[in-house]
Amino acid sequence: MEGVDYHADERSKAEFDVEAMKIVWAGSRHVLEVSDRIARLVASDPVFRKDNRAILSRKELFKNTLKKAAHAWKRIIELRLSEEEASKLRNSVDEPAYTDLHWGMFVPAIKGQGTEEQQQKWLPLAYRMQIIGCYAQTELGHGSNVQGLETTATFDPQTDEFVIHSPTLTSSKWWPGGLGKVSTHAVVYARLITDGEDHGIHGFIVQLRSLDDHSPLPGITVGDIGMKFGSGAYNTMDNGVLRFDQVRIPRNQMLMRVSQVTREGKYVQSNVPRQLIYGTMVYVRQTIVADASTALSRAVCIATRYSCVRRQFGSQNGLETQVIDYKTQQSRLFPLLASAYAFRFVGEWLKWLYTDVTQRLQANDFSTLPEAHACTAGLKSITTTATADGIEECRKLCGGHGYLHCSGLPELFAVYIPACTYEGDNIVLLLQVARFLVKTVSQLPSGKKPVGTTAYMGRAEHLLQCRCDVQRAEDWLKPNVILEAFEARATRMSVACAKNLSKFSNPEDGFAELSADLVEAAVAHCQLIVVSKFIEKLQQDIPGKGVKRQLEILCGVYTLHLIHKHLGDFLSTGCITPKQGSLANEQLRSLYAQVRPNAITLVDAFNYTDHYLGSILGCYDGNVYPKLYDEAWKDPLNDTVVPDGYHEYIRPLLKQQLRTARL
Amino acid sequence: MEGVDYHADERSKAEFDVEAMKIVWAGSRHVLEVSDRIARLVASDPVFRKDNRAILSRKELFKNTLKKAAHAWKRIIELRLSEEEASKLRNSVDEPAYTDLHWGMFVPAIKGQGTEEQQQKWLPLAYRMQIIGCYAQTELGHGSNVQGLETTATFDPQTDEFVIHSPTLTSSKWWPGGLGKVSTHAVVYARLITDGEDHGIHGFIVQLRSLDDHSPLPGITVGDIGMKFGSGAYNTMDNGVLRFDQVRIPRNQMLMRVSQVTREGKYVQSNVPRQLIYGTMVYVRQTIVADASTALSRAVCIATRYSCVRRQFGSQNGLETQVIDYKTQQSRLFPLLASAYAFRFVGEWLKWLYTDVTQRLQANDFSTLPEAHACTAGLKSITTTATADGIEECRKLCGGHGYLHCSGLPELFAVYIPACTYEGDNIVLLLQVARFLVKTVSQLPSGKKPVGTTAYMGRAEHLLQCRCDVQRAEDWLKPNVILEAFEARATRMSVACAKNLSKFSNPEDGFAELSADLVEAAVAHCQLIVVSKFIEKLQQDIPGKGVKRQLEILCGVYTLHLIHKHLGDFLSTGCITPKQGSLANEQLRSLYAQVRPNAITLVDAFNYTDHYLGSILGCYDGNVYPKLYDEAWKDPLNDTVVPDGYHEYIRPLLKQQLRTARL
Ligand SMILES: Cc1cc2nc3c(=O)[nH]c(=O)nc-3n(C[C@H](O)[C@H](O)[C@H](O)COP(=O)(O)OP(=O)(O)OC[C@H]3O[C@@H](n4cnc5c(N)ncnc54)[C@H](O)[C@@H]3O)c2cc1C
Ligand SMILES: Cc1cc2nc3c(=O)[nH]c(=O)nc-3n(C[C@H](O)[C@H](O)[C@H](O)COP(=O)(O)OP(=O)(O)OC[C@H]3O[C@@H](n4cnc5c(N)ncnc54)[C@H](O)[C@@H]3O)c2cc1C
Repeated sequence: MEGVDYHADERSKAEFDVEAMKIVWAGSRHVLEVSDRIARLVASDPVFRKDNRAILSRKELFKNTLKKAAHAWKRIIELRLSEEEASKLRNSVDEPAYTDLHWGMFVPAIKGQGTEEQQQKWLPLAYRMQIIGCYAQTELGHGSNVQGLETTATFDPQTDEFVIHSPTLTSSKWWPGGLGKVSTHAVVYARLITDGEDHGIHGFIVQLRSLDDHSPLPGITVGDIGMKFGSGAYNTMDNGVLRFDQVRIPRNQMLMRVSQVTREGKYVQSNVPRQLIYGTMVYVRQTIVADASTALSRAVCIATRYSCVRRQFGSQNGLETQVIDYKTQQSRLFPLLASAYAFRFVGEWLKWLYTDVTQRLQANDFSTLPEAHACTAGLKSITTTATADGIEECRKLCGGHGYLHCSGLPELFAVYIPACTYEGDNIVLLLQVARFLVKTVSQLPSGKKPVGTTAYMGRAEHLLQCRCDVQRAEDWLKPNVILEAFEARATRMSVACAKNLSKFSNPEDGFAELSADLVEAAVAHCQLIVVSKFIEKLQQDIPGKGVKRQLEILCGVYTLHLIHKHLGDFLSTGCITPKQGSLANEQLRSLYAQVRPNAITLVDAFNYTDHYLGSILGCYDGNVYPKLYDEAWKDPLNDTVVPDGYHEYIRPLLKQQLRTARL
Repeated sequence: MEGVDYHADERSKAEFDVEAMKIVWAGSRHVLEVSDRIARLVASDPVFRKDNRAILSRKELFKNTLKKAAHAWKRIIELRLSEEEASKLRNSVDEPAYTDLHWGMFVPAIKGQGTEEQQQKWLPLAYRMQIIGCYAQTELGHGSNVQGLETTATFDPQTDEFVIHSPTLTSSKWWPGGLGKVSTHAVVYARLITDGEDHGIHGFIVQLRSLDDHSPLPGITVGDIGMKFGSGAYNTMDNGVLRFDQVRIPRNQMLMRVSQVTREGKYVQSNVPRQLIYGTMVYVRQTIVADASTALSRAVCIATRYSCVRRQFGSQNGLETQVIDYKTQQSRLFPLLASAYAFRFVGEWLKWLYTDVTQRLQANDFSTLPEAHACTAGLKSITTTATADGIEECRKLCGGHGYLHCSGLPELFAVYIPACTYEGDNIVLLLQVARFLVKTVSQLPSGKKPVGTTAYMGRAEHLLQCRCDVQRAEDWLKPNVILEAFEARATRMSVACAKNLSKFSNPEDGFAELSADLVEAAVAHCQLIVVSKFIEKLQQDIPGKGVKRQLEILCGVYTLHLIHKHLGDFLSTGCITPKQGSLANEQLRSLYAQVRPNAITLVDAFNYTDHYLGSILGCYDGNVYPKLYDEAWKDPLNDTVVPDGYHEYIRPLLKQQLRTARL
């Protein structure tokens, strides 16, 4: 970051202490220190360069990823990094790799579903990476509907083994990351069959490849499923296909924490409650929400910095207007900036929720689990959807240059979007939330008190009839006013759905028929959660000059842009009047003006290195044009002045000699 | 399309004559015949295969494109194809190439801006492809603001030449397609300077490369600007960078139809009106709208067919539910299907408008030009935005498998999205529309009658106070009811903007401050145009069993989904009541049920070959799973069972020998 800072002027406008904001964003001074140190370590290591990803062939790209993963592990060992540091290092490398699944799914699956004994056997191997594991659930024919998986695990009492088998083409495992070319082991989900009886889906640890020469074990067919969206991006990952032809594994490789198969082939449930498994789900989805805020903030950082550099039209003192000064640009960009912060805080809260749920589970208290489950499912859905859309909007905000790979935005989009699909398709998840909401509403008359994020429904009677008393634009800055408007909207939409459902003689028919409305009610509920957690955050003590003030402004932007975007919801449920809607819009405009001078510093607070950001448009010093120009010449097409193919395919055409040319 | 048809059941459900619908979609029996014949020709020619695009390196990809372009031209000559057939063939090849710019921008620029003499000199060369041209307007520093371009063309009276020069880094031409590696010539836009006076931006024909050996001429630096979004996709195009170091061209290579420079260096305007140039703009944007319907229909075709194949959850007669039967899936997919048809018809109408405008221009009638200009700009903006979003939604509708390159959707998205940016950034265009609307409103009191697509504003008085009289859901099927609701919404939003603007003492300040609202008013106006053209289409005679009925249903879906999506607009302007909004929603649901049995046939009517569609998920016969499975193994990563890199980067890790390994 040496040299001229072309953003210096912009930075000098900030009305708050950026270092303090960095701590807020990171979560603590400690986390900031670790992230910062590790990110710089990675950025300065030539093995981790990533600017050549788009021009590598699939094989080169993949080999390069293997190299980075090995190098990362080597550094982790050499530097004796803590678990926190190691995980931060993997993040900073910023390239999907088999290690994501090994650490993020394989290990947690064994931890969550393995017995003590199994954990003792497998985890040390996994921790030392003497085995590499993946998570093989999805099949060609089944993803969302896990209960429909077709792979079978049939117990053979004669040999005390399970026979893992792929009975159909559609039962081929399909998608697991790290499976295609790397993993030596997998947690495989299959229908457990004992004595002809089908006990549904269970997890099994299966070795896939020889630890000697990496060749697939007998009966196993395994490979990569091919190119995915974009260049670079997720193609560094070996998402795989896997078929079993009667593969035998010892009985003790079924994950037996919750249910077991005995030596005699009897299927028994342990006294560990099934719900425990949901703990892992809450955990994984919490990380996805945190990742959403990271991905969105990267895109916003790029678009914000470039919008300060880019000048187009107008003219003040001879210079054209910075495009960030256009209100249309602000009205597209600043809500995304605010959303990045909003998702950060709700992610932080989810981390707390996970701890809370875990503690309760350990105390055999399952009361908050359904609510926690619905809430994480819903938050995963709305934050990933908003992030995917937001990244693409940021790309458009950069005009033509956003379309260049070196803007960083194409790859960020391509690598991010599957988050809308994996760990639960976003629509399927919202339908689960809706089901929970309808149930909550239906239990209200019985006096059952809704808990946690649905507690507000306990005040349904009030919320169904309250009137918003905003009279001037500034009234929209009052947290209580905002909160009540969002609570009223969510309640009214849920209650309306419940009412309409009651008109159907068969509730399932009703649920199916009204599912689009139900999804909208679920979104309203989940947005309320984000809003309320942002507001709660602001009730905490937040040190640093001007920091809290900035967050208040962002909170206003976040909430009021939602009101504007979903105005139909608020008006049709009578939560606010058209006049109040237009006051909200007015207030929003004035908040944009308040964000404007702080915009660049608000994205500096994310503390991303240029390496991590991977964007010429978003580079810290704002020296965009020379860098763009230099980058262009690196394309392989520029290796020669006259392109390969000229003599065969251009010259004959110009010379009118095509008829005789051999193409 | 031989073999088993896995969609046969679906196809048998259709309630209309698909062959008749194909004619409606194509525009005429003749166009259908040509498209069909040429598409099959291309599909059956191995040179035009495109399934390997994602795994080719940039150089291979580009060379392959050169080959296809030459082969296409060879076939065009050999088969003596008509202009219509030739252009259809280039479309069917379905790969961005320098020829797009040569035929689509270079030739039209000379036609539109060149004198008779210039046309006679250059067009025959271009028609025979003895020269290849591109359109070099945008620079590193300026795209939207054409008047800000920095390249200079200084007249030298001594030699009767222009000196073309790039005075700054940001004046480098940047983006022109076909420029990087292929074009021999370009229409270059530069500031014309005579005798020290700057006359603004003009076009010049500049030779870039030697016709002998293709090397850049002296003073010219030219190259490719590097990778863009995605793999395959637009990377087949050599978007280029170009710098001039005092390059001299003869005076007669300035495009002089509208203004000239004399031998003495005097700048003179011809009597040809400047506005003529807008004709070309209307033409180009009309083709973009047509392309939007094509791109969206491709995505919809893929998602619809796959949604019929894909079964997940539920169980009827042992089979799971086709995901197309889920109302959430329908509420996401069917509006896009309806939009594809809607954009088709508005595109057709734009073609008529172009002819109309051209005829008027020739008769020196410029009265409809501003309106035609605003309307094409606006339609370009809203159709391309909806299409870009729609393609990505279709990808999500395909769950995990939509993320595979072989689903065809990633590349379709990557190649399509720049349409939101080129030929006018969509927001900048909407601001132009808004300006026009505000002007129209401001002239109403003076009695000036708005024309064409703004004619409805002549009834502003009525539209500002009318009340929608929908009482039952079915009332929403009446074209007049729909039309009035959209007219009222557009009028009220424009008038509200005008009113708010009048509160500012400086109108430009007001316009800047309220620009986000103005954009929304422009969108409302443009959506009304699409709606009204769809309704007009239905007033024509449409032959074929059940065809008109289907289009009526789709028109209902299109309009009612817009009301649902923009409910805030309709409610806040008081155009409809909340109750009426919910009736619209109810009607929409019932329309979805009517679309359902016809869905697959409605996409068959697009008549796309499997080659053109380029999607395994969307293949005509629906035999998705075996094809997906086979496709996977073609990835280069599967060339070997043990991946390249195993010995260096996986084995040492598993064997705990990393410390000593050299990475
Ligand atoms: C990049 C990537 C990485 C992955 N990694 C792994 C991995 O490591 N391990 C692993 O096991 N899997 C992995 N997966 C698979 C992933 O978990 C599934 O793709 C995901 O669960 C979605 O399931 P699906 O593909 O079956 O979607 P589908 O269920 O087929 O979705 C298709 C459409 O149907 C709709 N739909 C489905 N059910 C319903 C319903 N009941 N009601 C209404 N609509 C419905 C959906 O909304 C969607 O629009 C990965 C996927 C991707 C893309
Ligand atoms: C694939 C591709 C192919 C192309 N091919 C060609 C070609 O063949 N020849 C050629 O000459 N050019 C070509 N271009 C360039 C293209 O025409 C420009 O990129 C386009 O005009 C947008 O301009 P820009 O990049 O300057 O965007 P910018 O104007 O820099 O846009 C950046 C942001 O600023 C906003 N903004 C700008 N002005 C205003 C305003 N007044 N008010 C409010 N907001 C504003 C925009 O909305 C956008 O969000 C191509 C571009 C692409 C991506």
